[in-house]
Amino acid sequence: MSLPITDRTRIRRIPERQQTDREALYDVLRDALVVHVGVVRDGLPVMLPLGFGFDDDYIYLHGSTGGGLFRQLASGVPVAIAATHLDGLVFARSLFDSSMNYRSAVIFGVPETVPDADKEEALRVVSDHLMPGRWDEVRPMTRRELAATLVIRVPLTEASVKVRAHGASEEPDDGEDRSVWAGVVPLATVAGAASRSELTPADVAEPESVRRAAQRGR
Amino acid sequence: MSLPITDRTRIRRIPERQQTDREALYDVLRDALVVHVGVVRDGLPVMLPLGFGFDDDYIYLHGSTGGGLFRQLASGVPVAIAATHLDGLVFARSLFDSSMNYRSAVIFGVPETVPDADKEEALRVVSDHLMPGRWDEVRPMTRRELAATLVIRVPLTEASVKVRAHGASEEPDDGEDRSVWAGVVPLATVAGAASRSELTPADVAEPESVRRAAQRGR
Repeated sequence: MSLPITDRTRIRRIPERQQTDREALYDVLRDALVVHVGVVRDGLPVMLPLGFGFDDDYIYLHGSTGGGLFRQLASGVPVAIAATHLDGLVFARSLFDSSMNYRSAVIFGVPETVPDADKEEALRVVSDHLMPGRWDEVRPMTRRELAATLVIRVPLTEASVKVRAHGASEEPDDGEDRSVWAGVVPLATVAGAASRSELTPADVAEPESVRRAAQRGR
Repeated sequence: MSLPITDRTRIRRIPERQQTDREALYDVLRDALVVHVGVVRDGLPVMLPLGFGFDDDYIYLHGSTGGGLFRQLASGVPVAIAATHLDGLVFARSLFDSSMNYRSAVIFGVPETVPDADKEEALRVVSDHLMPGRWDEVRPMTRRELAATLVIRVPLTEASVKVRAHGASEEPDDGEDRSVWAGVVPLATVAGAASRSELTPADVAEPESVRRAAQRGR
């Protein structure tokens, strides 16, 4: 089932960049670790960066029961949730035609609080997204930790996905100076070597989740 | 002059992460290429990813005079502008204490349209931020290109900056299992090798701006 084009999700500027395939949305979310959540407070826009996880139907956000803005989200106010990957700088022969390669998604919806019975499973979705494999390497969450954690979800039903993924605009007869270099410089999020904490004994090996995280983008 | 703490910028959850030094704001903007701009439309939150530039006093955003949402921004509606860098995944010995290292800024304000007389200079600020050195390597913008480009600016007077930049939370007496590895996996945006366009002759060398962009994060 593809993403419906609604008044909010229709891309008016360069509409050929709009993607309505759900896989394009999953692709943006898969590569992101943080989203910006936008909400209206006292008539004004407010934004909050948050870690997240997702499955076929929902994006899940977790926060503290002590967080003011997060508690507002849980109260069911409309949100917009944005993730953007900058995949490359596009150097054209003019500034006007210079651009960026990117994959961007904005999800629109109203959050629901995940009920207690499903909270642990939703937190596992978040954990498996941010730190795949970590859930099974550490102790289970305590009842107190679960109680202090609020999890909300927003259905992945209305989303605007936009992708640019090609070279510099040029035409043989565009009149631009061919002695000016044009092309693309790719960009990616890349992990570095893991560094252990002070209290981790030297003989404790890096677990699979850490080795995997340190391979990101390599 | 430091950033004032206002009702909108005060960080209530883990307030020790708040930075009020303007340099901290510049640091977040310096390392970012894209921001998410949040705005209220028909009472609902909407977001738009945009390239930008900045100087000591303003953040500059440019768009097409044909872009609907961008034109709305230029009409002077209140915005929130967010940039977040994920600098590392923090693996604690529990999921509850696991975290992320990040630098995040949310700027609040009302955009002003940059007057025609200052437009070219503002576009240069954007260009120098996104592709340093490129401005002087390509032909000047034409009058028609300038007319098709809208530039807005938002004063850097009200902004919320939040930073986490340390290891996994641990205390000698926290009761956690020391055989569980804890530590940090760093993350960064890294450029790859530039690829030239089809119409760029093989004997045209990569210019300084491209060589510089390809060194990002290295």
